[in-house]
Amino acid sequence: MNWLVIMAGGVGERFWPMSRKSRPKQLLPLVSQRTMIAETLQRVKPLFGTRVVVVTNREQAAAVRRALPGVKHILAEPVGRNTAPCVAWASAYIVKRDANAVIAVVPADSFIGDVKRYRQVVGEALALAGKADVLITVGIQPNAPHIGYGYIQVGAAVQRGFWKAKRFVEKPDLATAKKYLATGEYRWNAGMFVWSARAILDAYRQSQPGMLKQIEKIKDAKSLARIYPKLEKISVDYAIMEKAGNVVVADGDFGWDDVGDWQAVERHLAKDAAGNAVRGDFVGVDSTGCVVYSDGKHLVGVVGLRDLVIVHTADATLVCHKRDAQRVKEIVGKLSDRYR
Amino acid sequence: MNWLVIMAGGVGERFWPMSRKSRPKQLLPLVSQRTMIAETLQRVKPLFGTRVVVVTNREQAAAVRRALPGVKHILAEPVGRNTAPCVAWASAYIVKRDANAVIAVVPADSFIGDVKRYRQVVGEALALAGKADVLITVGIQPNAPHIGYGYIQVGAAVQRGFWKAKRFVEKPDLATAKKYLATGEYRWNAGMFVWSARAILDAYRQSQPGMLKQIEKIKDAKSLARIYPKLEKISVDYAIMEKAGNVVVADGDFGWDDVGDWQAVERHLAKDAAGNAVRGDFVGVDSTGCVVYSDGKHLVGVVGLRDLVIVHTADATLVCHKRDAQRVKEIVGKLSDRYR
Repeated sequence: MNWLVIMAGGVGERFWPMSRKSRPKQLLPLVSQRTMIAETLQRVKPLFGTRVVVVTNREQAAAVRRALPGVKHILAEPVGRNTAPCVAWASAYIVKRDANAVIAVVPADSFIGDVKRYRQVVGEALALAGKADVLITVGIQPNAPHIGYGYIQVGAAVQRGFWKAKRFVEKPDLATAKKYLATGEYRWNAGMFVWSARAILDAYRQSQPGMLKQIEKIKDAKSLARIYPKLEKISVDYAIMEKAGNVVVADGDFGWDDVGDWQAVERHLAKDAAGNAVRGDFVGVDSTGCVVYSDGKHLVGVVGLRDLVIVHTADATLVCHKRDAQRVKEIVGKLSDRYR
Repeated sequence: MNWLVIMAGGVGERFWPMSRKSRPKQLLPLVSQRTMIAETLQRVKPLFGTRVVVVTNREQAAAVRRALPGVKHILAEPVGRNTAPCVAWASAYIVKRDANAVIAVVPADSFIGDVKRYRQVVGEALALAGKADVLITVGIQPNAPHIGYGYIQVGAAVQRGFWKAKRFVEKPDLATAKKYLATGEYRWNAGMFVWSARAILDAYRQSQPGMLKQIEKIKDAKSLARIYPKLEKISVDYAIMEKAGNVVVADGDFGWDDVGDWQAVERHLAKDAAGNAVRGDFVGVDSTGCVVYSDGKHLVGVVGLRDLVIVHTADATLVCHKRDAQRVKEIVGKLSDRYR
């Protein structure tokens, strides 16, 4: 049977002040009226029914439960250890319940423009992974030389919309990213995977036998608390995918956007007549290109601004230039220093 | 006896969102812990005791009472008619109680840097006005070619720190303002006056006999509501001072600042290590020259900003460049259009 794993461990520092430790990006209704995690589930629910596992952390578990009222399988990590332990744990959890499971693993906080095409790709990947011993990862056709993503070079076609993976590469510098873009052979690594429980556990057995052995010892809250913190903090890409010989890349041509910062939110908000992307109550005088986000009835009034991000929440307000959207986490860093 | 008239009719649109119709600039603790009107009274209280008249408007009367608990004489205009009717009403009110009154008239919302010197100037002006038939206005030595103030050209000295006024001039253009500054003969008109009740009422009798006649008919709330709205909307400078031959200019060398907008507030707030003028909770990353004003425990976090004004209140937030501080009233204009 098909199973869905939603990875919901992010802390979303770049969405401060809306995102906090207990309310990260995936629990915000950033680009629609629903939380991103609810959108994530809703998109593919028909493919999985109730066979949905969410891996999150202790701080967020209660909020995740509220956001996804129908979901029974919620695994709460005592500490974040990146994606390799997370995937191993979810896979071990699923295989105990369904030895023939085929699993799709998706992050909780992506935006998908073309949901119909997305569902088709996931469906085709599940079918392929059900009959072949492959590890499928979704590759996004780059439309810019982005330096914030890992890339995957694709090789020969496996079937329509699927290629053999040739190699994984780390986040490149700009010159390299431009080269990748020009060749047409590279895809962004979107962190979405499809495989059979058998194939992924085999891959762990081969590349991460120690980690898997530890994971398989997790039986209850006590063993979880003892074992999990000792696991290596490593991504599934680095720990498994880059070492595997049976990786297939699916064509992620469904309008994927990881909505990585406030500037990215601009692409999904309605614009006013002056070209400001606005959610909430806003009065702009001679201002354009701004992203204004207010979570209630609070009014934001601006004069003479260009390309600023303004985010108001009940207890904090952010103001920065769009080009500094990635630097918002530096505020969070300063706040942590102050023990807030 | 000496009487003080505090003119508190301003609406303070340039201090939106802190200032509102019911809480204008003079009722804000803008540059100290006390409201500006309380500072205004406190500064010269020893000179006047309880002989203090505040002219305000209906919307603000209750708040003025709260801000100045000891003040008994509060006159609430049914509508604002600029300063000429206001001064006439206060003068007529005072002369009924004290035919020999000497009156100082001051705005409720100025900042004074050197309070001791200020008190000395007011004291000397009261003494002069008590013995001579003069209308004294305070002139501020310009330190920049400001185009937002009226100017007074001074002539021969009357006594130390006092000159005869040669002429009043309207707000100049920049070239003219530069000329005024260069000559050293011009002073900014600060809208602060000292005169005897007799002298000022004589001046009204001569230049505004109709207005004075109407003002003298005000007996109760009913006559006030009938008469006041019909009075001409005109400043005391224009209606009286520019036409009078007995005007004397006092040397306002006491660090006067009318704190005209959020940029001006910067001069009176403490600066953080990075050069941001801050009141409230603030975290700045790579930001300087900003004016950040928050009225509670709300946190303002910024990255990469230069010279921005950020003001947070419970129901609205302002963001603009310092150079646009004067344009904040345009937001208020837009809001009025929306009937807020």
